[in-house]
Amino acid sequence: MKKEDPIGIFDSGIGGLTVARSVKDALPNEQLIYFGDTEHLPYGDKSTAAIQAFSVKICDLLLKKGCKVILIACNSASVAAYDLIKEYVASKALVINVIDPMVNYASEYLKDQNIGLIGTRQTVASGVYQEKISEKMNGLKLQALATPLLVPMIEEGFVFNNISHDIISNYLSMPELKDIDALLLACTHYPLIQKEINDFYKSNVKVINSADPVALSLKNLLESKSLLNESPADEDSFYVSDYTASFERSTKLFFGEKIKLESYRLWS
Amino acid sequence: MKKEDPIGIFDSGIGGLTVARSVKDALPNEQLIYFGDTEHLPYGDKSTAAIQAFSVKICDLLLKKGCKVILIACNSASVAAYDLIKEYVASKALVINVIDPMVNYASEYLKDQNIGLIGTRQTVASGVYQEKISEKMNGLKLQALATPLLVPMIEEGFVFNNISHDIISNYLSMPELKDIDALLLACTHYPLIQKEINDFYKSNVKVINSADPVALSLKNLLESKSLLNESPADEDSFYVSDYTASFERSTKLFFGEKIKLESYRLWS
Repeated sequence: MKKEDPIGIFDSGIGGLTVARSVKDALPNEQLIYFGDTEHLPYGDKSTAAIQAFSVKICDLLLKKGCKVILIACNSASVAAYDLIKEYVASKALVINVIDPMVNYASEYLKDQNIGLIGTRQTVASGVYQEKISEKMNGLKLQALATPLLVPMIEEGFVFNNISHDIISNYLSMPELKDIDALLLACTHYPLIQKEINDFYKSNVKVINSADPVALSLKNLLESKSLLNESPADEDSFYVSDYTASFERSTKLFFGEKIKLESYRLWS
Repeated sequence: MKKEDPIGIFDSGIGGLTVARSVKDALPNEQLIYFGDTEHLPYGDKSTAAIQAFSVKICDLLLKKGCKVILIACNSASVAAYDLIKEYVASKALVINVIDPMVNYASEYLKDQNIGLIGTRQTVASGVYQEKISEKMNGLKLQALATPLLVPMIEEGFVFNNISHDIISNYLSMPELKDIDALLLACTHYPLIQKEINDFYKSNVKVINSADPVALSLKNLLESKSLLNESPADEDSFYVSDYTASFERSTKLFFGEKIKLESYRLWS
């Protein structure tokens, strides 16, 4: 591993670009290699074995590209494949997921608060956040709610309109999230509706999306290993396993600027 | 092709089971072999080339299983791959899609009516229904509206509640569907909300889902080729390319009874 090696980031699709955005903002000198497995998206419906097989193949590519870190920018893959990938990659690269940085953030900054969490059905059902936070914060019970309509709602462009207001306030009014002081957004898509969520709470609830803690955690990790790039980065690359123009159009939404997606047919 | 050969049906997932249900009801003597490509679902986001490649591989399996007919029970695959599959399968089996039976039904029973259609973004954007109906019905302009939130809404179990009522009435009140006499449901998931749609219209609009015209069309085709099975059918098989317990639980919703899904890893 060398300082100038790129950072590999992967996700089932383009939602992980919100994480890539935060990484780029925190670490402008780093070169990113992003892989979106659009051929298999979304991972939420897939079996653990399938997600593990997809993830290993993607890691092979990122290692071949010489990445010094692999960032799993997808909650489903973080749950299903993090331990396996850490084992698989071994000393060839550092591995980081989107769950632990959020858990560490909560245990450091949200002590003695009632914490709520929203995520996809699979993320919430896995219980991984609940378990890790309870471990770190001595039995604290996280109030978690699955909000499965939010990803398709965002992907279909229903944001800042009647439908999105209805769906969001319907979810956030559910008893599972009663009396919370802070809400963790445990899905890479949710930063796109963070403002609507803040509006709903009239800023009385602290809303935290995982992209920023993840970027900060990555920065600290690279620093501690003396692996921060000191010279300006080479150009970033963004690959997808199945290219469509519609994905390319959506990159602006998630990354803040339109980017050029390259087709990389890893499976066919 | 022999009378006792099975009927092959495929879809990107388990939504096509609504079509399989109608086929089973119309043709109880026929054996079904169903393949749901859950590893790649949903097809709506995938490129035409990818859907074509998936469809050809699935057809190979259905032909290997000796199917006399291949029914493409998926609008995206019907748009992207019907012509290719017809060419590919050639005389080895009959091929039928979910679009033409609906177009034929409309041109026969909905003359001189204002016809609306709802479907996924991809189905509506392809313009295939609009084009085919205009051809058959001498320039009639179909009023089509993409209703992309309905599939995730149904899959996440939001039916017959406040959210589904809001979403459905929001869509059906849009100017695109003004003053229609009949509404075509151009998606295999929509039969599950047909009652809610009927309720919205207070039965003043005729609502037609494609499953029934497709089953009828298949029956007529087999009859015309003397390929109807006359003896009781062998047991049906239901394969998926990526098995999860959650899919198996959802089969009841789409097929009316719980069925046993078999894992068939066509790709890995």
